[in-house]
Amino acid sequence: MAQDKEDSQLKDIVALCKRRGFVFPGSEIYGGLSNSFDYGPYGVEILNNLRKLWWKYFVHRRDDIVGLDSSILLHPRVWEASGHVSNFSDPLIDCKSCKVRFRVDHFLDEKLGEGFTVGKTLEELQQVLKKENYACPNCGKSETFTEARNFNLMFKTQQGANEGGTMDIYLRPETAQGIFINFKNIANTSRKKIPFGIAQIGKSFRNEIMARQFVFRTREFEQLEMEFFCEPGSQKEWFTHWVDYCTNFLIEVIGIQKESIRVRQHEKSELSFYSEETSDIEFKFPFGWGELWGIASRTDYDLTQHEKASGQDLKYTDQSNNKKFLPYVVEPALGLNRLFLSVISDAYEEEKLADGETRTVLHLSSKVAPIKIGIFPLMKKDGLGEKAKEIFQTLREHWYCEYDESGAIGKRYRRQDELGTPYCITVDYDSLKDNSVTVRERDTMKQERIDIQSLKSYFIDRI
Amino acid sequence: MAQDKEDSQLKDIVALCKRRGFVFPGSEIYGGLSNSFDYGPYGVEILNNLRKLWWKYFVHRRDDIVGLDSSILLHPRVWEASGHVSNFSDPLIDCKSCKVRFRVDHFLDEKLGEGFTVGKTLEELQQVLKKENYACPNCGKSETFTEARNFNLMFKTQQGANEGGTMDIYLRPETAQGIFINFKNIANTSRKKIPFGIAQIGKSFRNEIMARQFVFRTREFEQLEMEFFCEPGSQKEWFTHWVDYCTNFLIEVIGIQKESIRVRQHEKSELSFYSEETSDIEFKFPFGWGELWGIASRTDYDLTQHEKASGQDLKYTDQSNNKKFLPYVVEPALGLNRLFLSVISDAYEEEKLADGETRTVLHLSSKVAPIKIGIFPLMKKDGLGEKAKEIFQTLREHWYCEYDESGAIGKRYRRQDELGTPYCITVDYDSLKDNSVTVRERDTMKQERIDIQSLKSYFIDRI
Repeated sequence: MAQDKEDSQLKDIVALCKRRGFVFPGSEIYGGLSNSFDYGPYGVEILNNLRKLWWKYFVHRRDDIVGLDSSILLHPRVWEASGHVSNFSDPLIDCKSCKVRFRVDHFLDEKLGEGFTVGKTLEELQQVLKKENYACPNCGKSETFTEARNFNLMFKTQQGANEGGTMDIYLRPETAQGIFINFKNIANTSRKKIPFGIAQIGKSFRNEIMARQFVFRTREFEQLEMEFFCEPGSQKEWFTHWVDYCTNFLIEVIGIQKESIRVRQHEKSELSFYSEETSDIEFKFPFGWGELWGIASRTDYDLTQHEKASGQDLKYTDQSNNKKFLPYVVEPALGLNRLFLSVISDAYEEEKLADGETRTVLHLSSKVAPIKIGIFPLMKKDGLGEKAKEIFQTLREHWYCEYDESGAIGKRYRRQDELGTPYCITVDYDSLKDNSVTVRERDTMKQERIDIQSLKSYFIDRI
Repeated sequence: MAQDKEDSQLKDIVALCKRRGFVFPGSEIYGGLSNSFDYGPYGVEILNNLRKLWWKYFVHRRDDIVGLDSSILLHPRVWEASGHVSNFSDPLIDCKSCKVRFRVDHFLDEKLGEGFTVGKTLEELQQVLKKENYACPNCGKSETFTEARNFNLMFKTQQGANEGGTMDIYLRPETAQGIFINFKNIANTSRKKIPFGIAQIGKSFRNEIMARQFVFRTREFEQLEMEFFCEPGSQKEWFTHWVDYCTNFLIEVIGIQKESIRVRQHEKSELSFYSEETSDIEFKFPFGWGELWGIASRTDYDLTQHEKASGQDLKYTDQSNNKKFLPYVVEPALGLNRLFLSVISDAYEEEKLADGETRTVLHLSSKVAPIKIGIFPLMKKDGLGEKAKEIFQTLREHWYCEYDESGAIGKRYRRQDELGTPYCITVDYDSLKDNSVTVRERDTMKQERIDIQSLKSYFIDRI
């Protein structure tokens, strides 16, 4: 029952996202490309708002962080050094009969209990598979699985070089390495002293086998990552700082409800081999708690690896005492698409009204909402349309507004409720006489009569 | 001589970009990945400013344009339908001896005159090559060229499907097709009526053989594209409108000098097969005039192709008269990296000062400049540092500012000149007495004494 309810909430959100132009299935007219999504007119506005808020909070508001925009295509040696070529893989099996592919670890954890496969090697997993001799859950046939093999998650492509033919390169599976390989250049040109961070927003790609959970996990996704470089020994303190800072961003800046998130510390057995400590800020998605923001203490692993592989000196010199060292790194890594889903899920409500009807409403923070103000004339005629358009022209100088003159006024309100628009203005016949309009607040649905001259200052106080 | 001067200006710009943290060579610690670049702390701020200004001008300021953020990875049938799989290629030859690769058309145009290869087939080019029997310009050997062949410019990769193994997919070579395949969904959900446009910002990838012209042409690049859908017959009028609108953006919004750009109409022989009319807004780059913004009248070619290939009805119905039609499309397509290079080149000056010294300065528009205000204490000590930091904290709430307390004041000015910072504030000993500071304007280098209380309104008027 609980599972059904959760599935149905996700379905409702997916339907709203399509109906209102937030998110469309990717390549839909060609039957779709699995787990890919395109963000429509209102979706892209939310993404832009989230990107801007994060950049402001992580770069512009801080003295100790600068930005970067590095390439998706990096030299293949970057991924050899970082360990991605040899280690960044999932263990897979195929059913030879129906051709469906499974992740061995997920498959065995489901059969033998969550956590069963933690720390086991590919060979050990293969032995369990052989011994238990499971049937394929899709077609039901037995003894049809291929041997388990490690499947690298990086997308590979070939770049035509100017000399000597082509070169295998990868689409980056994380934006972090672009930061590490630019650390020295940035330290030299930015005048920042340790401790300082480098922040980046950009797309990454992972060729994963995945469950269908809307935009929660997609092969192409966007990351908001920051690598914070600090003196060895200070990383624990900074780790705590960043967990708090990120939590604060979600609650205070983005407006996510406190009870929708929790911090979960990773067990020793869960930690990546380079990580000293990791905590996830989890969000309560419609399908359960899931990772939203991973804060990892990466030690000097990455810089050490790149120093070895490149032969370059990547050490930092503290000018005050001439101490030379490789900084330790604390990384808060956030997925933009998950943040989007969190924001929408958290704001989504099917509200029972006093009159027995239901309205669907997104209680988005006004900083996140795609449209800030909807502006409607009661009728198009009798000069109401012109009056409303005048107000629209004035307010759009300051906020992204939408003018809508079609359909019953109640329907127009409902449409804006579903878009999460915090305020709507209606111009009626009285407006022509008293030069005032009705402002309706989304959450309370309370209506106030406001003088047209005061609208700007009214919204400055509220948005 | 002229060529040398141009090369040297480009070199100076590349050097400034690296020295000041605008642009670093991609994967530099690994010897670089050819023609790839990473944007450092100040470069990314300029990119963000350009993205925001374009979005505001093309989406938020207009009633008839909405945004989109579609995937880089689309269904492969998209590129079959659009013609990219069969037609999007360059004719190449390799030298078998030294392995250097050439574009046949560029090679022959250089030998036989600009425009020689226009309209010629691959077979015709091959015949000319055979007849002329050129030596390789790199190693000097004769009769070493391979047969000319068409080399598709799309990066190909494999996506692991959940069922049935892997699928060949491409990195998009343009953002435009993501717009066309979403046209119907957006028309249905956005309430926009024809004529209306869909705008998108995002990365594209082309596996080209290319000259070294800094960020002018790179395999990975970012596009700002808008597809404007209009009634057949109205496209000529809209074409003119968009050429003007884009020109206006460059001059009025971004602040590029009038004499640095020109509009060049394509000859019939140059037009893409789907294009009815194309004009380029060209910029005078350090290496000569080059395409910055292409405005193309694409007819209903793309929608027709996608309708045929997908079997979906992509027609638009005009509600006022029930007329059903495939809209015509006018597309202004701008490259972000070229816009960046235009802005920097246009703003770059090595200015001879009265005292015989030279200062390097970027005359960037304040909307584009990465840092709006530099704030310096004359000395760190005697409370000047605290006072300057106080001002910094107040002003950064409104503008991206930089606080700098190290080195001689003249050097700090020079650094900000090279960053294109329009204003610098110096806090000196008098400031402690009279609560005023020196504000220095970048271009005139004029200094004014301003009361600290009035700084905010002073900059509101100017930035």
